[in-house]
Amino acid sequence: MLDVAFLGCGGTMPMPERFLASMLLKYNGRKILIDCGEGTQVAMRRLGWGFKSIDIICITHFHGDHILGLPGLLATISNSGREEPMYIIGPAGLYEVMNGLKVVIPYLAFEVFIIENPKDSILVDFEKNKAVLFQNDINLLTEGNQERKAQLEIRTLELEHSSPCIGYSFYIRRSPKFDVDKAIDNQVPKVLWSKLQKNEPQDFEGKTYTPSMVLAEDRKGLKISYITDTRPIESIRGFVEGSDLLVCEGTYGADEDIEKAIKNKHMTFRESATIAKEAEAYELIITHYSPAMMNPGEYIENADNVFKNTSLAFDGAVKTINFKGN
Amino acid sequence: MLDVAFLGCGGTMPMPERFLASMLLKYNGRKILIDCGEGTQVAMRRLGWGFKSIDIICITHFHGDHILGLPGLLATISNSGREEPMYIIGPAGLYEVMNGLKVVIPYLAFEVFIIENPKDSILVDFEKNKAVLFQNDINLLTEGNQERKAQLEIRTLELEHSSPCIGYSFYIRRSPKFDVDKAIDNQVPKVLWSKLQKNEPQDFEGKTYTPSMVLAEDRKGLKISYITDTRPIESIRGFVEGSDLLVCEGTYGADEDIEKAIKNKHMTFRESATIAKEAEAYELIITHYSPAMMNPGEYIENADNVFKNTSLAFDGAVKTINFKGN
Repeated sequence: MLDVAFLGCGGTMPMPERFLASMLLKYNGRKILIDCGEGTQVAMRRLGWGFKSIDIICITHFHGDHILGLPGLLATISNSGREEPMYIIGPAGLYEVMNGLKVVIPYLAFEVFIIENPKDSILVDFEKNKAVLFQNDINLLTEGNQERKAQLEIRTLELEHSSPCIGYSFYIRRSPKFDVDKAIDNQVPKVLWSKLQKNEPQDFEGKTYTPSMVLAEDRKGLKISYITDTRPIESIRGFVEGSDLLVCEGTYGADEDIEKAIKNKHMTFRESATIAKEAEAYELIITHYSPAMMNPGEYIENADNVFKNTSLAFDGAVKTINFKGN
Repeated sequence: MLDVAFLGCGGTMPMPERFLASMLLKYNGRKILIDCGEGTQVAMRRLGWGFKSIDIICITHFHGDHILGLPGLLATISNSGREEPMYIIGPAGLYEVMNGLKVVIPYLAFEVFIIENPKDSILVDFEKNKAVLFQNDINLLTEGNQERKAQLEIRTLELEHSSPCIGYSFYIRRSPKFDVDKAIDNQVPKVLWSKLQKNEPQDFEGKTYTPSMVLAEDRKGLKISYITDTRPIESIRGFVEGSDLLVCEGTYGADEDIEKAIKNKHMTFRESATIAKEAEAYELIITHYSPAMMNPGEYIENADNVFKNTSLAFDGAVKTINFKGN
């Protein structure tokens, strides 16, 4: 089970009645923030989920509406008492940007670990008060080698915008069920069952028992994808395929704005819905509206006609996404 | 006549119902902004005075609540169509900070002229669509020497805070009245009167006529002072002396918070009012409230008992200050 909060849904610049597009994921009490335009910390305070438990911040690109709230947010997280490391993921140029922003946030209570334009999946295990990140089985912070079956996998995709920009997918692994018959067949001592169920291999009386000896087949997890700002390039389809939730930009609602969308490297609602349809997503939520679009609801048919399960993000909306099936 | 807008009145961090302390001055349609915390551009949009006509931005210091809205505001001003140079004044370290922030605002439509910790007065002449700034009769932009009797004088004072911080005073010169008797006594040809009244010296038939030959004595102008964040050091008194409006921080309302004020290098309402009284200001407006102070009005007596003409700033308040006397 995952909670998704839409902190804002505007593009370009912050407006009095519309915060900038930013999304917060909450899973077992730990949090991941995607994009952080000016005012995001105010939207977060309004939401009331707290600041200390944000472990990872994913930045799509360095346009002001996606990055300018970051220094203030980091300062506020620092004031919240967090001391565990913070991971910031972003496209090419992230080191340079973070280095520049240091002038206004010289002291933070935690270490900031920068992950610039990652090509390989990042695996995340959430612990009680922090996240531990791995890439190719290497712990990113300690550089220690460790095999993991992580709770969360983050992947990125290079998009097509007027500055280097990446999309994100988050896959939350679902633990397999415990299979009593399998445990008995494999002659696993009962005393080990609960630990093996927690995915921890056990040595007992000279023999090694693995979780796979008591667990059923893997179950489908949850896939959330986040795509903004970009033209609808071919590679997006495969990247977001089968998403339980696709969050996708729709800077322009009207079909007639297609030329603006092409020029400014954004998408219309219809283009967004076409991706959702072709990628066989379960659900689409459109966000990142142009400030010129006062009422996005006027244009929802342009998406709905292509992909039925579409909704429009609004500031402060919260959605719970559950695993499908047993 | 000068309009003063209080864009926000909070300190430390932006809150859902309180923008950060920032003040906008409007004089003959041109504008000066003092401080720019995160969200200031949203407060400005709510105010509705526009972005293009901001000629000067004065920063007191580089704590997040005073500077983090600057990159976003500059980007929005750039989008507004402004092409005339923008002057940014701030304490020691301004060059380095602006250089760091460049990573997130690489392209602006106008030149940014940085004035770091100025020791001498800055004189400002507002023209139709821009400001022209001088220091010791040198045009700051063109470096050309030119004698001026400017419309506005900006002075700064080093304050005592936990980072380099400066206070500001703005003195608006009031044009002297035209003195017909004096013009006749000085045998000034009538054809020159209106140009001399506009303060432009004239050569005519081999003789030079100066504005002082037709103008009465100087009249008292308007003095606005802005003091935050600081302890109430001795030098403030002389600096703000005789202000028509003193805008001063009051981070803490309760007298009992004096130890916090000393520790965090801020002021209580009472300390703020004591400055206003001793400096013989005409009027005091207190701003920059701690986020812990939900209702500053509870504490106004602590200031009122010391200095009668005190009011408390609130987000969006606008005040017109008129020249006193004829």
